[in-house]
Amino acid sequence: MVKIGVVGGGQLARMMVPAAISLGVDIVVFSEAEASSAKLAISHVGDYTRLDELTEFSADVDVLTFDHEHVPLGLLNALVEHGVSVSPPPSALSLVQNKIVMRKALTALGLPQPRWAEVTIESELLSAVDSIGGFPCIAKLPVGGYDGRGVRVVNGVSDLTDWLAEGPVLLEEKVGFRRELSQVGARNSSGEWVAWPVVETRQAHGVCSEVIAPAPGLSAEQIAGAEAISHQVAEKAGVIGVLAVELFEDAEGQLLINELAMRPHNSGHVFTELSVTSQFEQHLRAVSNMPLGSSALIVEAGIMVNLFGGVDAELSAKAWTKYPEAKIHSYQKQPRSGRKAGHVVVVGSKWVELLETGIAVRDILSERDYDS
Amino acid sequence: MVKIGVVGGGQLARMMVPAAISLGVDIVVFSEAEASSAKLAISHVGDYTRLDELTEFSADVDVLTFDHEHVPLGLLNALVEHGVSVSPPPSALSLVQNKIVMRKALTALGLPQPRWAEVTIESELLSAVDSIGGFPCIAKLPVGGYDGRGVRVVNGVSDLTDWLAEGPVLLEEKVGFRRELSQVGARNSSGEWVAWPVVETRQAHGVCSEVIAPAPGLSAEQIAGAEAISHQVAEKAGVIGVLAVELFEDAEGQLLINELAMRPHNSGHVFTELSVTSQFEQHLRAVSNMPLGSSALIVEAGIMVNLFGGVDAELSAKAWTKYPEAKIHSYQKQPRSGRKAGHVVVVGSKWVELLETGIAVRDILSERDYDS
Repeated sequence: MVKIGVVGGGQLARMMVPAAISLGVDIVVFSEAEASSAKLAISHVGDYTRLDELTEFSADVDVLTFDHEHVPLGLLNALVEHGVSVSPPPSALSLVQNKIVMRKALTALGLPQPRWAEVTIESELLSAVDSIGGFPCIAKLPVGGYDGRGVRVVNGVSDLTDWLAEGPVLLEEKVGFRRELSQVGARNSSGEWVAWPVVETRQAHGVCSEVIAPAPGLSAEQIAGAEAISHQVAEKAGVIGVLAVELFEDAEGQLLINELAMRPHNSGHVFTELSVTSQFEQHLRAVSNMPLGSSALIVEAGIMVNLFGGVDAELSAKAWTKYPEAKIHSYQKQPRSGRKAGHVVVVGSKWVELLETGIAVRDILSERDYDS
Repeated sequence: MVKIGVVGGGQLARMMVPAAISLGVDIVVFSEAEASSAKLAISHVGDYTRLDELTEFSADVDVLTFDHEHVPLGLLNALVEHGVSVSPPPSALSLVQNKIVMRKALTALGLPQPRWAEVTIESELLSAVDSIGGFPCIAKLPVGGYDGRGVRVVNGVSDLTDWLAEGPVLLEEKVGFRRELSQVGARNSSGEWVAWPVVETRQAHGVCSEVIAPAPGLSAEQIAGAEAISHQVAEKAGVIGVLAVELFEDAEGQLLINELAMRPHNSGHVFTELSVTSQFEQHLRAVSNMPLGSSALIVEAGIMVNLFGGVDAELSAKAWTKYPEAKIHSYQKQPRSGRKAGHVVVVGSKWVELLETGIAVRDILSERDYDS
C-alpha cells in the first residue's frame, strides 16, 4: 500500500484526502497546527523548517509531497540525500521558491513571459526599469509572496527603498493584459503528462476570486500554445505532480507566464466536479507514479467561486435551499476577514449562468461579516 | 461545527469521509477493528453491542448514524432516551433489522411486495407455502442476512428443518422477475425528500455485481411508481438519511419491494460521479438536517462494477493505462476471495459501452486470484 506524506495542513492537503480515500492509498499530513484544515490526516504537528522533524515524518512514507512551497530547499536536498522520495523534486521546486530563479529558468527555456530584471541596489533601479519598458512596473519579492502579498506597483525609485534594504527584488513590466488564464496539468515520473483545459481566472485585490472553465473564447492556437508552454515547463523543470501555469493574455492575444505553482492550485478546484480526474487525485497519482487519469470534462462547463472569511452553516443552508446544484466546499478554517475559507463549484452548460449562480451563493454566504 | 458519529468502519463509512471533508463537518467512526476500511476517521475501536461504549462515543457527537444495521434496537432506544440524536431513528431502523417486521410494515402500508408468510414451526410450513403460491419459494432468516447469506430456495419441508429449529423464518414467493432495480433517495428531518433516478442492479451469486444508471427502458409510469413507493416508505417509516429500496420488476412490469436499506447502498455508489450530490454527502446532509442537494445527473449515464477479492495496485495501473476514464475505488480491505474490495465507475452517454469498459477493468483486476 502506497503511503503519501504531505507537508502542510491547509486546504490543498485537506482536499488530497478524498482522493487518497478513493485511490486506496494512505495519506498522512505534517501540519503546522493541530486545528489545521487537513486535521483528519495529521500524523505530525511541528515545524517544517526543522530537518529532524521532516526526517522523522518522512521515514514512515513512500513519497513526500507538499501543499505549499515553503520548505527550505536545503532541507529538501538533505532529505533526498537521506533517500526520501521527494515529489516534485527540489530541483523543480527551486523555480517556485524564488521568482528570480523562475524568471531566469523561463528565459533560458525561451518561454514567453513579461520583460523582467533583477535589482539589488537602488542605483541600478532606473536602468533596470528602463530595460523593461519604464514606470509603472511591478515589483515582487522573490521569496514568500502569495495572493497579492509581496507584490506592488512601482512608480518611482522611492517605492522600493524598503524592499531593497532587505535584498534583491524582481521587477516585471506591467503587462496590459486582457485577462488572466491558468493551465493546470500533471506529470508523473515516467514522463506522462496530462493537462486540463485552460481556465480563465478573475482576481479581486490580487486574490483569485472566480474561475471559468474552460476559458471562453480562446482560439485553437492559444489553447495549443498554453498546453505547449505548460508541458515544456513540466518537462524541462522535471516537475512531478500538478503544475499550474498562470498566464496573462495580453492585448494582442499572446500568452505570457505570470506565475508557477507545483501543487494543486486554486484555479484547478473546479475540476473536482467538472473533470473525470480531480487535480488532487492526479497529484497523488503523479507523485506515486501511477498512470494519470483522464482530464476530460464530464460536462461542458464549470465555474469556481472562492469564499472568504468563513463558511457559515446557516447561510450555507440558506444558499442550498435556493441553489441545490451548488457544491459548497468548506475548509473548516478559523474564520477571519478576507481569508480563503471555501469555494463553490457549479457545473452545467452555460458558464454565464453558472457564474451567476456561484456569485449568488457567495452573496448569501457573505451576509455574515467576519470583521466583527 | 456539526460532528457526525458513524457506527461501523466499512466502506460506507469510508466513503462518508470525503463527503464530510467537502461539507466541512467533522466525522468520527466507531469501528470494530483498527484496520477497517474507514480507518482515517476512527475515534473509537470497540464493540457496538455494548451500551457503555456506544454511550461514550455518542457523548462527543451531534448525531449518530450507521454504516450497517446491526446495532441492537434496545441499545439504540437507550441512546435516544439518553438524549442522543440517532438517525435514522430506531423506529425506522426496526424495519431493516428484521425482514418479518419489514414485510408486516409494508403490508400495513399497502405497498407492492412478493407474497409472504411467517413460519415458526414445521407443521405450519405447507399451508404457509400454499398461501404464497407453492414450492419453490424463498426462505429468509429475518435477522442478520446480507449479500445472499441467510437466503435459500425451498423445495420441500426438510429444506427448513435447521432454520426453524433456531426461530421464525420469512417465506416469500419466488418472483419470476425480469430484472432487479433499486431506487435510492434521502429524507431529512424537515421531511425534505430527494431521490436519484432508478437504477438497474445485476447480481451474481446473490451479490450485486453491476449497476446501470439510470435503469434502461423504464416507462414513465414505472419511474413514477418506484419514486412513489420509496417516498412512501421514507415518509411512513420516518426515515432520516439515505433509503435504498430494492425492487423486482416482474414479468408484467410491476414493481415489488425486495429489500430495504437505510444507509448509503451499493446500488447508489455510481452517483458519486454521476450526480451533483453523492449518496454519502446526501446522507450526511440528511442526518444533520441540512437542505438536501440536487440529485440531477451531470451526464446521461453511468455504470458501477463491483470488484471482489482485492484491488491490486499494479493491476489498477494496468487498467488505468488502457482506461484512463475509469474511476477505480479501493476500500483498502484485507484481500479475501469473494470479498467486496472496491468498485469501478464509468460515466458517459451510452451505458452499453460504459458497462463494457467497467467489466474490462474488472477483468484486468481479476488477473490476480485471491484464493491462493
